Amino acid sequence: MLAEIITIGDEILIGQIVDSNSAFIAKQLNKIGVSVYQITSVQDDKNHILKALAEAEANADIIILTGGLGPTKDDITKKTLAHYFDDHLVEAVAVRKNIEHLWEHYIKRPLMQVNIDQALVPSKCSVLMNKLGSAPGMWMEKNDKIVIALPGVPYEMKALIDDEVIPKLRNRYQFPYIQHKTFLTYGLGESALAEHIETFENELPTFIKLAYLPSLGRVRLRLSAKGINRELIEKEMQIQTDLLLPQIKDIFTGFEEDGSIEDIVGKHLTEQGRTVATAESCTGGLIASRFTANAGASKYFKGSVVTYSKETKMQLLNIPEALIDAHSVVSIEVAEAMALNALKLFKTDFAISTTGNAGPTKDHTQEGLGDVYIAIANKDGVFSAKFSFGNSREKVINKAANKAFELLLKEILKK
Amino acid sequence: MLAEIITIGDEILIGQIVDSNSAFIAKQLNKIGVSVYQITSVQDDKNHILKALAEAEANADIIILTGGLGPTKDDITKKTLAHYFDDHLVEAVAVRKNIEHLWEHYIKRPLMQVNIDQALVPSKCSVLMNKLGSAPGMWMEKNDKIVIALPGVPYEMKALIDDEVIPKLRNRYQFPYIQHKTFLTYGLGESALAEHIETFENELPTFIKLAYLPSLGRVRLRLSAKGINRELIEKEMQIQTDLLLPQIKDIFTGFEEDGSIEDIVGKHLTEQGRTVATAESCTGGLIASRFTANAGASKYFKGSVVTYSKETKMQLLNIPEALIDAHSVVSIEVAEAMALNALKLFKTDFAISTTGNAGPTKDHTQEGLGDVYIAIANKDGVFSAKFSFGNSREKVINKAANKAFELLLKEILKK
Repeated sequence: MLAEIITIGDEILIGQIVDSNSAFIAKQLNKIGVSVYQITSVQDDKNHILKALAEAEANADIIILTGGLGPTKDDITKKTLAHYFDDHLVEAVAVRKNIEHLWEHYIKRPLMQVNIDQALVPSKCSVLMNKLGSAPGMWMEKNDKIVIALPGVPYEMKALIDDEVIPKLRNRYQFPYIQHKTFLTYGLGESALAEHIETFENELPTFIKLAYLPSLGRVRLRLSAKGINRELIEKEMQIQTDLLLPQIKDIFTGFEEDGSIEDIVGKHLTEQGRTVATAESCTGGLIASRFTANAGASKYFKGSVVTYSKETKMQLLNIPEALIDAHSVVSIEVAEAMALNALKLFKTDFAISTTGNAGPTKDHTQEGLGDVYIAIANKDGVFSAKFSFGNSREKVINKAANKAFELLLKEILKK
Repeated sequence: MLAEIITIGDEILIGQIVDSNSAFIAKQLNKIGVSVYQITSVQDDKNHILKALAEAEANADIIILTGGLGPTKDDITKKTLAHYFDDHLVEAVAVRKNIEHLWEHYIKRPLMQVNIDQALVPSKCSVLMNKLGSAPGMWMEKNDKIVIALPGVPYEMKALIDDEVIPKLRNRYQFPYIQHKTFLTYGLGESALAEHIETFENELPTFIKLAYLPSLGRVRLRLSAKGINRELIEKEMQIQTDLLLPQIKDIFTGFEEDGSIEDIVGKHLTEQGRTVATAESCTGGLIASRFTANAGASKYFKGSVVTYSKETKMQLLNIPEALIDAHSVVSIEVAEAMALNALKLFKTDFAISTTGNAGPTKDHTQEGLGDVYIAIANKDGVFSAKFSFGNSREKVINKAANKAFELLLKEILKK
């Protein structure tokens, strides 16, 4: 069973927004055993959309469109869909009621004709009710192919995929079974890792694929299996996992399917009933922000002090001025003092600190650019390390945050 | 002049990574007047890549491929490209030297055959030297079409686009002129806005398009013009801008081309020589993290206290326990006290605070879910407001951060 995703909108093609919808849809489809053959981003243009639909129909069984369902003139997906299915638009009573309800209870502004017109749908479609917004999802069928149109607003699209599209597809088809297992590794480059596990890779069964996904200081190793016999696939994936794990034990931090590294850290801290705080200079609150993106973070994350000047380091984290003057703000001594004092201030089991020179992006020549010190303190003391994360500000900040989570995870798992 | 972007990699089609490369490439191409006709994401599969190349050649003059240039077995772009151009791979001496240099000075591990093999390129290509990594960019030509292959690692790809691809394209062609102007607006929904400026939209000259880009509490309005006569386009865009601005003056916060709202805030603060700090509860450090993503933030951003528990609010921000008990942690009183105390603590001109209930994503029914109080303090006092940002944790956190920047910008511009 193959799907194709078509995202509609000039804003994607001029680079004004990053298309994150496709990744979400692809992930959800993959979970039920639908492979995505291709993702295509096209303009808000009737002929281009029609062409993409025809090409997708040749490759895929399920076509999911997103975008172009808003109330304004540049939103032409619905009319184009009616044309493609040789259909016309009619008012969907339930959708109109939903729109009236939304306007009365949440928008609290006069309901305009353009909003009411969002209740118009092709007469042949089944409506997928969008409770979070005024643009309904639409499910249409032709020649055994399914075409689904969803709004481009990410949280509306996500709710429709989870609550409507996936359950309907499951009802309709018997899917093959797909299993992915993604090993998160830190500390060894892609090619060194590939050489290290070359024999393992060569001896994989043909229905299991291995992929390397390097990004910002880590490599994700993904095993993917697909087939009819779920039991066989699960058994073989377990065998291969058991073969691979001992070979990468020094660099393995967890499975991506268990969540991001901050999810994994959060899970362990919750289980252990332990807590953490951060004192951030060069990461500027990113570590705190990643911790708190998780629901349930308040169980283990107590807070952070972001100190972006010498004075705030002195005043908020009680770092002695003499220590800063003797070693500079970016030093192992200041990093360790920050972590130790954050531990006291927040009364946590662990504290992470970062101090470094993320630098301006433009100047690639500056001395010490990209140098970051990371320290972790707990009741037994503090340890720290120096890293060099290169010459791009974005990269330095993100690599430093990744490394901080990696060091913390190792520390948490020690006992 | 039309381009097509083809991103290669199973990791995109199974939703494991979001393709942010395409948006960057599209933006840079648009700046020089190359429109992107389509973005296509395909599998690590020779036949699929060949098919996408042939289709792209029919639509576009310039085809940019990213991904699949790594040292491992699933990276097949280079061989596929050689096949497409009826070519074979040869060693590029300069690339090999660059690889040896990188390994000697940065990687500091033994150089392996798979790394040396990255110096192999199609014999007909011009090498685009990748100083930041081992996979070179490649520039090939056939039937007046240009095919460019770039590594998928974002910072390597970005450097090659800026330093090699764009200058080479500029040298080669005379481009039409494209101008985009994007008005950032906050506080009015897409359809209300569309109705409000309907006359303006209807009277636009045909070579200027208007698009609405709504996201998380704001709507971006984009005017796009394209043509041969640069002077005429710039003049007409200015006329339309002058017509539009008075109609949206209450909701307009700046032009996207001047940067994100945090860039605009940062620019004004720098110009005014004023400073800011944050005291964050529900936004968990996101506001600080967005401030500090900008090079030069240390000029105006002093720091943040992220308090994720009642105790830390009391201890770090000196919020009286009685105040919290009387009004609850999520209240106007606590928000205002947080902002006022952060102002004192960091000795800044402005302080922003947030406290709210971002909630768990799963439970959509909880009382008060999505409620956020935001306060801004300065030497004249403090003001605050309550917002309801819905029932998705991610949305609540991001809308709260956007709203905080919006309120701060209005405050900054008052004097």
